[in-house]
Amino acid sequence: MTGTFYIIGVGPGDPELMTQKAVRLLKECPVICVPKGTKAGKSVALSIVEQTISIENKEILEIHFPMEKIRMDDERSPILEKAWSSAADAVAEKLAEGRDVAFPTLGDPTFYSTAFHLAGVLPEVFPDGSTNVSVVIVPGVTSVSASAAAAGMPLCLGDERVAVLPATYEKEKMLEAFLSFDTVVLMKVHKVLDEVLLLLKKLDLLETSIIIEKAGMKGERVIKASEATNQKLHYFSTMIVRKR
Amino acid sequence: MTGTFYIIGVGPGDPELMTQKAVRLLKECPVICVPKGTKAGKSVALSIVEQTISIENKEILEIHFPMEKIRMDDERSPILEKAWSSAADAVAEKLAEGRDVAFPTLGDPTFYSTAFHLAGVLPEVFPDGSTNVSVVIVPGVTSVSASAAAAGMPLCLGDERVAVLPATYEKEKMLEAFLSFDTVVLMKVHKVLDEVLLLLKKLDLLETSIIIEKAGMKGERVIKASEATNQKLHYFSTMIVRKR
Repeated sequence: MTGTFYIIGVGPGDPELMTQKAVRLLKECPVICVPKGTKAGKSVALSIVEQTISIENKEILEIHFPMEKIRMDDERSPILEKAWSSAADAVAEKLAEGRDVAFPTLGDPTFYSTAFHLAGVLPEVFPDGSTNVSVVIVPGVTSVSASAAAAGMPLCLGDERVAVLPATYEKEKMLEAFLSFDTVVLMKVHKVLDEVLLLLKKLDLLETSIIIEKAGMKGERVIKASEATNQKLHYFSTMIVRKR
Repeated sequence: MTGTFYIIGVGPGDPELMTQKAVRLLKECPVICVPKGTKAGKSVALSIVEQTISIENKEILEIHFPMEKIRMDDERSPILEKAWSSAADAVAEKLAEGRDVAFPTLGDPTFYSTAFHLAGVLPEVFPDGSTNVSVVIVPGVTSVSASAAAAGMPLCLGDERVAVLPATYEKEKMLEAFLSFDTVVLMKVHKVLDEVLLLLKKLDLLETSIIIEKAGMKGERVIKASEATNQKLHYFSTMIVRKR
């Protein structure tokens, strides 16, 4: 009997925003897998868990998780290949012992989580082949939902369309999204804040746009885009641009 | 002391996907407000709540909730105006008595939930003016996250862009989204399934597209788009079109 690998969304930060399913599974799993040596991932996801669940009797499996940006369709660099493969080896070893492994991830696992890379490699390294690997994904509350909730605004109503893009994305694509979508969500907006604000001003969208810093976390802050010029924003900052 | 109006996301269907915050607040609120006479809303959201929380000692406030499609920027029809206004009156009455009112809503409140219309009207009908109305939005797991989790596929990784659209939307806009986004999520795809499948085939996207019926609910079903022709889908069906 091999174990199951649970990729568990723990929500945006407030431990109360973990689902009941996440709490149950994290309590049940004897092994909790966390990335080591990352800038943002580790401490946040694990600290959310720790505020609700005692991890004293758990085995904490620290794996090295490459933070280099990759796309699944890119050719993998040898460094990434090696890192994913050895992370998967470590997880597979526990699963082969018949122990369930939980991988808590900030927000929702399907939404910009690196956990998917690990799940993708797992079958390749598993001793008896992919048919024996059981992976379960437990959805969670995204930072986008928490951002809109904090701002007291809907992301979408009725027949509206929503686009989600990293704010680093090329200006033309951003402009295109602003023009043809009812709501545009910009992730990690801190990197390009001033350019975005300028563009919004030109399009007359500044007044209806909101920035949410650390949504669903301690220190959550809702800032009007029209008052955001020259503000230094946290890494966890999301902008919601709504047309109406 | 007036009460607080809590708009609470209860997740996609599985009661375990309710957040701990949702469960706590629904237990604490003496009044639960549910829409009456709707096709999909009432029974689903309330039945999710009932599977976790005893509602025996709660006051159930049934309000008539217009199901006509509206956009917030449309001029409101007199019928809608009247319905929202009297629903808001009923809620405001409880709040004025100092009682908290919970409004459970399927999925996440900011994501295609009609609860926002009610919250928008509330300040207008409140006896002492809008400054006394306290509305709290509690985010939940969306059906989109549950769909991607069920399909075992990421919505987005790295720098990818995601578009969410109702499948009823004009074909040109849909085509545009397929061409310029990494992932396109089509809500309520049952209405236009055959046209969408045809379009995906032309774009060579059929093989990587997945339909999830009743995500996070009993009877959840994951269907390959390539095998979906002529299938009769449930109202709660989402398609995820991924490029890679």
